[in-house]
Amino acid sequence: MTRAEENLMDWLRDAHAMEEQAEKMLDATSQRLEHYPELRARIEQHLEETRQQAKLIRGCLERRGADTSSAKDVIGRMTAMAQGLSGMFVSDEVVKASLASYAFEHMEIASYRVLIAAAEAVGDLETKRVCEQILVQEEAMAQWLADHLHGTVVKFLARDETSGVEAKR
Amino acid sequence: MTRAEENLMDWLRDAHAMEEQAEKMLDATSQRLEHYPELRARIEQHLEETRQQAKLIRGCLERRGADTSSAKDVIGRMTAMAQGLSGMFVSDEVVKASLASYAFEHMEIASYRVLIAAAEAVGDLETKRVCEQILVQEEAMAQWLADHLHGTVVKFLARDETSGVEAKR
Repeated sequence: MTRAEENLMDWLRDAHAMEEQAEKMLDATSQRLEHYPELRARIEQHLEETRQQAKLIRGCLERRGADTSSAKDVIGRMTAMAQGLSGMFVSDEVVKASLASYAFEHMEIASYRVLIAAAEAVGDLETKRVCEQILVQEEAMAQWLADHLHGTVVKFLARDETSGVEAKR
Repeated sequence: MTRAEENLMDWLRDAHAMEEQAEKMLDATSQRLEHYPELRARIEQHLEETRQQAKLIRGCLERRGADTSSAKDVIGRMTAMAQGLSGMFVSDEVVKASLASYAFEHMEIASYRVLIAAAEAVGDLETKRVCEQILVQEEAMAQWLADHLHGTVVKFLARDETSGVEAKR
């Protein structure tokens, strides 16, 4: 393997761990949301996409002859980050969850752009194609979150002003 | 104070802690980068902007009568996230630093969008104006990072293939 091929493999393993982490975060968030059905529905849709994405990346790793079980310590690091984010789910949980999801989506977007550049560099056009396909879904999710953030905040503030009404989830 | 005003105050404190954290991360990253002068220069420019942003947010807090020293435990949470990210600075440090910076910029972008909605809701037009001004800088930084990510990866891969040449920073 050339160094570029090793880098591509490492980044595919990172992406796989990232998608597994994303699945956990999205699942936990969607299960807690009660009063924001539109946000919950979009997260559930993306949860299904995320499961498919993890499978697609496993496919790329296997096609390149990698053992997908050997994910490096990146899982530990991503988990630390996700815990840092989910520790934020406090009195304004839906707002912080929106921030965390938006930031995490962009971590994913950047990761797939890195993978596309690396796959191009080593001439792995199938991996490049798969990553471009996933990138479209990540960008759509990020755009949806951006478009709906203002509405979520306005709804949260209005519910929070109303006594006897739960605002945070 | 209405609940909406309390929420605005909390989110301004969060933003202040976030900018202080951003300053630490940008400073550490720019000091380590050696072979990526363009990226380093852009980070240094944004470091200066970040210091001004922290000051502007302190101004908003003080105008609203808040004590800026009373930043809540959000600092601890942001630090955990940043440590999770900076723990990533491994053999491909410049690539992971680009990912982390890109994700953190989007956390900031979303935070300022939340603040703009909240400032609007309570009629604090000066805070809204300040946050809109900062948002422009955060979006420009995020766009720059997006535009230069491919180039950074290609350069990293090329250096990494060359023996005797350091690629990672």
